[in-house]
Amino acid sequence: MKAYHGIIPPVVTPLTCRHLLDVAGLERLLSHILSGGVQGIFVLGTTGEGPALDRETQVAMISESVRIVAGRVPVLAGISSASFQESVSLGRQAAAAGCSGVVCAPPCYFNLGEPELMDYYRALVSELRLPLFLYNMPSMTKVYMKPDWVCRLAELGGIGGYKDSSGNMADFHEVLLRLKDREDFSLFVGPEELLGEAVLFGADGGIPGGANLNPGLFVGMYQAARTGNVPEMRRCQERIYAQRRLYGLGRFQSSMLKGLKSALHQRGICEDYLARPFNHFEAPDASIVAEVLAAMGD
Amino acid sequence: MKAYHGIIPPVVTPLTCRHLLDVAGLERLLSHILSGGVQGIFVLGTTGEGPALDRETQVAMISESVRIVAGRVPVLAGISSASFQESVSLGRQAAAAGCSGVVCAPPCYFNLGEPELMDYYRALVSELRLPLFLYNMPSMTKVYMKPDWVCRLAELGGIGGYKDSSGNMADFHEVLLRLKDREDFSLFVGPEELLGEAVLFGADGGIPGGANLNPGLFVGMYQAARTGNVPEMRRCQERIYAQRRLYGLGRFQSSMLKGLKSALHQRGICEDYLARPFNHFEAPDASIVAEVLAAMGD
Amino acid sequence: MKAYHGIIPPVVTPLTCRHLLDVAGLERLLSHILSGGVQGIFVLGTTGEGPALDRETQVAMISESVRIVAGRVPVLAGISSASFQESVSLGRQAAAAGCSGVVCAPPCYFNLGEPELMDYYRALVSELRLPLFLYNMPSMTKVYMKPDWVCRLAELGGIGGYKDSSGNMADFHEVLLRLKDREDFSLFVGPEELLGEAVLFGADGGIPGGANLNPGLFVGMYQAARTGNVPEMRRCQERIYAQRRLYGLGRFQSSMLKGLKSALHQRGICEDYLARPFNHFEAPDASIVAEVLAAMGD
Amino acid sequence: MKAYHGIIPPVVTPLTCRHLLDVAGLERLLSHILSGGVQGIFVLGTTGEGPALDRETQVAMISESVRIVAGRVPVLAGISSASFQESVSLGRQAAAAGCSGVVCAPPCYFNLGEPELMDYYRALVSELRLPLFLYNMPSMTKVYMKPDWVCRLAELGGIGGYKDSSGNMADFHEVLLRLKDREDFSLFVGPEELLGEAVLFGADGGIPGGANLNPGLFVGMYQAARTGNVPEMRRCQERIYAQRRLYGLGRFQSSMLKGLKSALHQRGICEDYLARPFNHFEAPDASIVAEVLAAMGD
Repeated sequence: MKAYHGIIPPVVTPLTCRHLLDVAGLERLLSHILSGGVQGIFVLGTTGEGPALDRETQVAMISESVRIVAGRVPVLAGISSASFQESVSLGRQAAAAGCSGVVCAPPCYFNLGEPELMDYYRALVSELRLPLFLYNMPSMTKVYMKPDWVCRLAELGGIGGYKDSSGNMADFHEVLLRLKDREDFSLFVGPEELLGEAVLFGADGGIPGGANLNPGLFVGMYQAARTGNVPEMRRCQERIYAQRRLYGLGRFQSSMLKGLKSALHQRGICEDYLARPFNHFEAPDASIVAEVLAAMGD
Repeated sequence: MKAYHGIIPPVVTPLTCRHLLDVAGLERLLSHILSGGVQGIFVLGTTGEGPALDRETQVAMISESVRIVAGRVPVLAGISSASFQESVSLGRQAAAAGCSGVVCAPPCYFNLGEPELMDYYRALVSELRLPLFLYNMPSMTKVYMKPDWVCRLAELGGIGGYKDSSGNMADFHEVLLRLKDREDFSLFVGPEELLGEAVLFGADGGIPGGANLNPGLFVGMYQAARTGNVPEMRRCQERIYAQRRLYGLGRFQSSMLKGLKSALHQRGICEDYLARPFNHFEAPDASIVAEVLAAMGD
Repeated sequence: MKAYHGIIPPVVTPLTCRHLLDVAGLERLLSHILSGGVQGIFVLGTTGEGPALDRETQVAMISESVRIVAGRVPVLAGISSASFQESVSLGRQAAAAGCSGVVCAPPCYFNLGEPELMDYYRALVSELRLPLFLYNMPSMTKVYMKPDWVCRLAELGGIGGYKDSSGNMADFHEVLLRLKDREDFSLFVGPEELLGEAVLFGADGGIPGGANLNPGLFVGMYQAARTGNVPEMRRCQERIYAQRRLYGLGRFQSSMLKGLKSALHQRGICEDYLARPFNHFEAPDASIVAEVLAAMGD
Repeated sequence: MKAYHGIIPPVVTPLTCRHLLDVAGLERLLSHILSGGVQGIFVLGTTGEGPALDRETQVAMISESVRIVAGRVPVLAGISSASFQESVSLGRQAAAAGCSGVVCAPPCYFNLGEPELMDYYRALVSELRLPLFLYNMPSMTKVYMKPDWVCRLAELGGIGGYKDSSGNMADFHEVLLRLKDREDFSLFVGPEELLGEAVLFGADGGIPGGANLNPGLFVGMYQAARTGNVPEMRRCQERIYAQRRLYGLGRFQSSMLKGLKSALHQRGICEDYLARPFNHFEAPDASIVAEVLAAMGD
């Protein structure tokens, strides 16, 4: 088993208003997540609204999470930014706070070509003291990391793994076949709907947003896929899609995040504030969330 | 004539390395730009690599520019960020430093729908004390501001104008026809290639990157278009396209920026460092820049 | 003046049901269009729903148009298809029917790269006996014809000109500057909103959909722009945008086509059937069309 | 087992030049494919260059395939076109020739919204006498068929199934969960890289281009996935990716098609002509094809 593997939920950032950290909510949330048997947590990712938070809240989220987790599992911190220097300084703060690694998507404002992306990660890894996980997230960053690029970056010392949130399984399978036997390089799939097949074909784990709400379900899918237990995989897949109904209520890309926070709120775990640019769920949607939760049972 | 009008160059940010401000270069650059007769300057825009700089360099660029300009023309500051709170705090620093207005594109990481964008600008303007200019830049932000959205946002107090860098002239003409008679709202076109026709049909001015190198050329086009001097417009257009050959050398979206900084370097105005994610021009390209400059004559 | 110049409306195809030609409607329509002083007509373009029609209706539209126009102006025929051989055979039928030229966009199903596009047009022109007009229509064909490509294709014998419907004026200006002095090559702009500025800077004319309804308005804009009559250009632009309100009623890309056919129907010129995949206007939209027409006056 | 299931290769169209059918090559090809144990064939799909061929060659391909297959497996025919009427008439010719069903992607030139797409398929199925398979191919047609749309269309009588070539497995899993128990509706995945996981989670089969070259490999993957034989799935996946190296040689979207035809040519099965807009493989690429084939062994 590699150092990084299993289910590493991208933790939502509980807020007491549009931008201040809800520490009590975070304690309840992490307690809930860890009780599900996850192998790590990832803060300040896309699900964690990382790039939408200001530096102060980012640092609070990192340091409170490290404090609460207290070494039980590794804590990875997202450091994606439009600015290289801001990513570097946040990465250094993550190291100082006790994180085990950092995760960085390509910079999100300017559009990059291949040589620029290569140079970016090369420079970034040389500035950081923690393992760096590559993060393919083209719907946000506008740049798609091709399998060849990932495999070349994997040659750099200091790169600890790859998280693919592109949804392009044909390319992720290629990366898996080329890199899965590298003991010091871990391969994670982002979209929770693809967790089963990714692990079945060799991924080391997943970073599923839905594990904020139901961590055990995703740990179960991971175990089933690792052991090739196909009937159990099919059962987990049905439950993952039942939960996914929470995400389809809004009209925009914020739907998943809104559904998750609304459900966590209804479960008494944390408030449902979202950082701007996202708005609250309206009341009618919240009542649908309640129905989906009731139907999910657990 | 409206309060904001004419040529307001998006000033490039001179750097002494990949991320530190070159103050002496900035002094030479602003002196060069102001000598061309421009009606304002805009710092930390896309051409100014604003979103790629860290906060310290952003603030240095704002305060040094205000100091150097010394009230001769208004200084607008870009405050675009993936984070609302970061835009607000940079906007407050811009006000404290003595800027006249701020310019903000939609947040660049998450994808927004219409109501989220409306709410974003409404909240932003309520937090700022300076006039806010809307900034349509879909190639970077992934959101296209439709004419209807712009016209509705123009109703908000505190919005001072609109900069359209989309290149979609059919929609910009619609905005012009609907808003050009609003005395307190200024309309600017971004792409320098479209300056002539935009002003001819009622735009208040332009924010052309090429004015870093040749401010007088764009001031000339502005005057020709305002006065309906068609032969002079055609002459200016030819010269604008001759200069534009500088931008086509690289292969990626950074080409314009690289060409501009390389030309400014060859003219002895400032260094040609670019902030990451962009790389330097290679030597062969630099020699082509020299040729284009020579052909341009002036 | 070049052989092809001025306003060449992309004629809508009047239908008696979802797919059969309405010959009487076509007679009224062409009489109306020619009375506006246009310099040619273009049948089976995008506005003419060319690619959505079957071969029989395509050939009927060509031959009836040639018959009705009776040599008063040149007739150009669209031959765009997903299949090279189908474009060639339709082009030969157009020649036999008496057309003056053909217009062909890149094939619309498969995605092409530059060498494939070059080879396509090279082969096409060698198979045809009529002048071929290049047609840049990326929103339909998924391939964007760069200025360099157009300029290289213009070197081929048999290419008579270029119609740019991309809406990218920065690139169209580049093509204008490079090719406008070629006596045997005509440059047309597609979007009617950009007609004025295109002609002002050297285009030979335009192919505006709105000229089906109000040909004189576009002929007026063309004359004003050719002669540099800026006040008249501004007046025409306002009227073009007033008419454009007809196009914004539907929610989809068919809006312009629906608005045009609905307005022509209300003017008693032809039926408002559209070929599949487009649907009729619903009644509420039709009443808005009536209001816009009334407001337009003429 | 449903009426349509298993591996149904999208047969390449052997050509003797850029557009004429190579009947002898087709006989060798179909003999090769059928010997692999496939459960049907699909002619005139994307891999079959269907939309790029003229009507005469399309009909020849259908009728010769039906003749050669001689009832051993069902023959499905692609009828995708920019024109509704052309799809209908080709569908009728396919029925007359003895095909078992037709496959139709949304029309490829104009851009559709949801109601237009729904109406299109509703009208199409009412005009045809054969079962119609929906075909999601957004990279060519520009319209993405959402799971909800597919599920609503599945309610129509006459729709026999769905082929998803989008590569979006998260959405395909949703369609699977909602429709896999419908006995009269078959679900197929297009991309061969996703065959294993699709069938594991309930798809009825796949339409993999690579089965032209190595039908037995894909039949093996299908069987392994149906029976939940995970080790065999992993072995097949490695071999599928080894073969996939054939597709990465060109620079454009035609790469897969070029690689396949070049490999079939080197195996002595058929010529490697491609219909326009695609060009031949150049010699250096052909030698790489030879190396990949040699490495694949069989």
